[in-house]
Amino acid sequence: MFLNNCWYAAGWDYELIDGRMLSRTILEKKILFYRGDSGKVIALEDRCCHRGAPLSIGRREGDDVRCMYHGLLFDPSGKCIQIPGQEKIPPTLTVRSFPAHGKYGLFWVWMGDPAKADPDNIIDLPYMDNPMWKGIPDYLHYDANYLLIIDNLSDFAHLAFVHTNTLGGSEEYAFVTKPVSVERLDDGFRVERWHMNGDAPPFHRKVIPNKNDKVDRRNIGHMRIPGVFSLESMFAPAGNGAEKGNLEGAREYRNCQFITPETRKTTHFFHIYLNNFEGDDHNISRSLRDSLMEGFMEDKHIIEYQQEMLDADPDFELKQIAADVPLSHFRQTLSKMIEDERNGQTSPSVQATPRIHDPVPGGARKPSREAVF
Amino acid sequence: MFLNNCWYAAGWDYELIDGRMLSRTILEKKILFYRGDSGKVIALEDRCCHRGAPLSIGRREGDDVRCMYHGLLFDPSGKCIQIPGQEKIPPTLTVRSFPAHGKYGLFWVWMGDPAKADPDNIIDLPYMDNPMWKGIPDYLHYDANYLLIIDNLSDFAHLAFVHTNTLGGSEEYAFVTKPVSVERLDDGFRVERWHMNGDAPPFHRKVIPNKNDKVDRRNIGHMRIPGVFSLESMFAPAGNGAEKGNLEGAREYRNCQFITPETRKTTHFFHIYLNNFEGDDHNISRSLRDSLMEGFMEDKHIIEYQQEMLDADPDFELKQIAADVPLSHFRQTLSKMIEDERNGQTSPSVQATPRIHDPVPGGARKPSREAVF
Amino acid sequence: MFLNNCWYAAGWDYELIDGRMLSRTILEKKILFYRGDSGKVIALEDRCCHRGAPLSIGRREGDDVRCMYHGLLFDPSGKCIQIPGQEKIPPTLTVRSFPAHGKYGLFWVWMGDPAKADPDNIIDLPYMDNPMWKGIPDYLHYDANYLLIIDNLSDFAHLAFVHTNTLGGSEEYAFVTKPVSVERLDDGFRVERWHMNGDAPPFHRKVIPNKNDKVDRRNIGHMRIPGVFSLESMFAPAGNGAEKGNLEGAREYRNCQFITPETRKTTHFFHIYLNNFEGDDHNISRSLRDSLMEGFMEDKHIIEYQQEMLDADPDFELKQIAADVPLSHFRQTLSKMIEDERNGQTSPSVQATPRIHDPVPGGARKPSREAVF
Repeated sequence: MFLNNCWYAAGWDYELIDGRMLSRTILEKKILFYRGDSGKVIALEDRCCHRGAPLSIGRREGDDVRCMYHGLLFDPSGKCIQIPGQEKIPPTLTVRSFPAHGKYGLFWVWMGDPAKADPDNIIDLPYMDNPMWKGIPDYLHYDANYLLIIDNLSDFAHLAFVHTNTLGGSEEYAFVTKPVSVERLDDGFRVERWHMNGDAPPFHRKVIPNKNDKVDRRNIGHMRIPGVFSLESMFAPAGNGAEKGNLEGAREYRNCQFITPETRKTTHFFHIYLNNFEGDDHNISRSLRDSLMEGFMEDKHIIEYQQEMLDADPDFELKQIAADVPLSHFRQTLSKMIEDERNGQTSPSVQATPRIHDPVPGGARKPSREAVF
Repeated sequence: MFLNNCWYAAGWDYELIDGRMLSRTILEKKILFYRGDSGKVIALEDRCCHRGAPLSIGRREGDDVRCMYHGLLFDPSGKCIQIPGQEKIPPTLTVRSFPAHGKYGLFWVWMGDPAKADPDNIIDLPYMDNPMWKGIPDYLHYDANYLLIIDNLSDFAHLAFVHTNTLGGSEEYAFVTKPVSVERLDDGFRVERWHMNGDAPPFHRKVIPNKNDKVDRRNIGHMRIPGVFSLESMFAPAGNGAEKGNLEGAREYRNCQFITPETRKTTHFFHIYLNNFEGDDHNISRSLRDSLMEGFMEDKHIIEYQQEMLDADPDFELKQIAADVPLSHFRQTLSKMIEDERNGQTSPSVQATPRIHDPVPGGARKPSREAVF
Repeated sequence: MFLNNCWYAAGWDYELIDGRMLSRTILEKKILFYRGDSGKVIALEDRCCHRGAPLSIGRREGDDVRCMYHGLLFDPSGKCIQIPGQEKIPPTLTVRSFPAHGKYGLFWVWMGDPAKADPDNIIDLPYMDNPMWKGIPDYLHYDANYLLIIDNLSDFAHLAFVHTNTLGGSEEYAFVTKPVSVERLDDGFRVERWHMNGDAPPFHRKVIPNKNDKVDRRNIGHMRIPGVFSLESMFAPAGNGAEKGNLEGAREYRNCQFITPETRKTTHFFHIYLNNFEGDDHNISRSLRDSLMEGFMEDKHIIEYQQEMLDADPDFELKQIAADVPLSHFRQTLSKMIEDERNGQTSPSVQATPRIHDPVPGGARKPSREAVF
């Protein structure tokens, strides 16, 4: 159901300041996250191995944590190192610990085999720590399976109908634009879409001076396993030749989203919307944060309804349209990796894949709801 | 569990005015009801066949409806007739449509084989569109299986205890009256009960001038499959010979109730209480509506408790008393029809049945909770 | 899962005054309790055998109860003795009745074989009706299995960490004290623990004049099947030789707790905290009641979390520490009695058991979660 041997975004750094003990469920496991006195992010199973009390209502002591039911003390590896009133500590008294690591203002957790956890494999999104790009980190909780959110992000067609008045701008976007290319990658996909000589969508209009000028709009979406989405958006003055590389007067955005399963029916959604033009005018990122949140709430509304529908009828078989190519590829890829992981095989290393320019697949394969969802 | 090949009341006409898109679950299927520009009532499965989004949060366009997730457009037959950005529409892109029809201020839906749906078979209750009879349509939602509500209505014995101070009037009613006859019909039953020289019950007292005059009271209840109840009540001056046909000075009521399963544990209850004497004094139907609602709430209270009891112990076996004859007959008849429908047999056409005057059945058959409920 | 052939505390006498019909679930059975005109406490299955309506929303008539759905009347043995409108009453129309008895201001119920119910076997706690001991009866509802509460009470180690600022007084208590003895009994266990020359814990400080005097503290806990806990606490001036029997200046408490399963995941918790020194100053028992309640809420918080943890992962295996000896013995004893009851064997009569002074068991037996919980 979930891929374990990969890094998941588990929270924003600011959630652990001032010694906070954060209990957060990741892949249906309740985990206690905290930053020890040493500065290290520590992730322990949030359940004392003695009587099952949550460690998160315990007490941090340096890098250790004490269960406040009977006082057992655990070190960052999960080993019990003190039992009040008892001298000998059985070596079986341990709680599970998880590899954790801080990067890009997020802390990440590895749910699979600790021997395979290499922080260097955390996804590369260089603009996230480039001071030229500004934005405000935020969070949404979804009552829906993570794949429904990934589906949603895989599909620009919904922009026109779900987000007509916020992120999309017009229903025309759905009728007149098509993906220039859908690239199937070994770890996800890349989609590019151009919309020439259109009106600026509402979220962008709010933060630019010449609100009525026509724009050439380019979106490049990149979805990577297990659920990291980046959308590189560019708005250039219409007719200036942006499609040929002239970015004069263009304004750009980097939409970074981290989709981490909480349970099979609920999801953590961390996001930040970066822009490269606000300079010192922080009202721009504040306005963009609000616009994006408004758009996300439109998605959340419809995605949570979808989850209810799927729950209500487990036999319901989704039917494909042309716009589903990226999401079908993603689900199939992920499904294969989960299967390989279960069978103890190593997934193929990430490699370049040929571009595929047909948005409609030759043989219509069934969406892999059965396999993954 | 449910009979499919029959007409169910699905809502009151006024619920669809002004283009409203109504999502209502009938027999555990979520259905979108709306009145198209053509005036026709349309009933479609409330779930887009593409990604499962509810059509009821979509947009009506004439007689069609557009899913507002990716913009697919469906006609009243459930066929997808437009996909934005895609020219060819696969013929499998359909949602289920249900026969629907307006009658008596209600719209009705047929959940079974559309080929068998004939609006002429909708139940006949002529006073419902006779302007002499006045009343206010209303609705209640029950957290209980529909058969528990039908049981309740099948049984005048409960009037005395549940409705002592509202619809019943006195506990004496239970001790001194007996059904004059219980007629078992092929599609339900008919019960008649007389109570001579009694006090007018509270709901009636409120709307008549001579509140303390004794009355002869006659109730004829008629319950028909799948769950339509009509109660014809008559209150005549005591001793005037109403039982011999003299209806001088009598006031009459027609209590029409439509019990439609929402799920196996919840029920729609549409009702209207008609009187033949208010003329232009609409306060009479307003008062009656309130009295009835008060009585229904007494029923709802006890019926929902019953449901909880049955849920809590699936092995609980109900025990019969004499007053259960009608409800047992109804459950057995319905159970047989559901079984026949499953086996592909046609139910026998409705025909006259011999009257049965013994209210206690010779061989006590077990109530058919196992079979139907 | 539950022991049936034993007396359970079912409520406080004051809950049944003024003819109150109390519906309370005991061992997953919904029971109607009431005091009849004869003064007898009556316990009947709270479900009419006819259509399943709750008898607790019916009407008491002397020692009988009438179902207010169709008017059936039941006597204290559960026999139906009247059906309105029907002369002959089938002998199968009965509801189950349970032996019930009042003692110590509580009413008790016997859920097993009525032939074995002897009120003389209700537990002996003589101070509960000795006027020298004063206290206020109270109640808590737990969303947790009863054994988790018994575990909690079996273990003084938690006093130091859960109740540092209320009942415990200091974390030192956990490190420096050890049970003087753990006695395994045939019907539970007895634990004794001394703490010399310590500070008075907060709940005690509040009700004594010399708040800063050091005290010698002795706790004797006694847990008996199915779930009756008594804690005899004594606070003597430090160094006076209380451990050798000099109780001059000592103040004593009797903490009586009655843990009765409501369902497998919820529990009734009746309690009273008696003191022997308040005389006419009722503020002392009021203050103690509040202090205890504050402490119980600390337990409830952690125990209900524990329940959530166990629910979330049925495979979780609790690991033992030395302090678990009493609770392990209790669970094993109870588990054996439940098994014997199922197999139709009589449990061995209660008899004296040898004292066992080793708090750590030789062979670490697995806690019996599997068998009982």
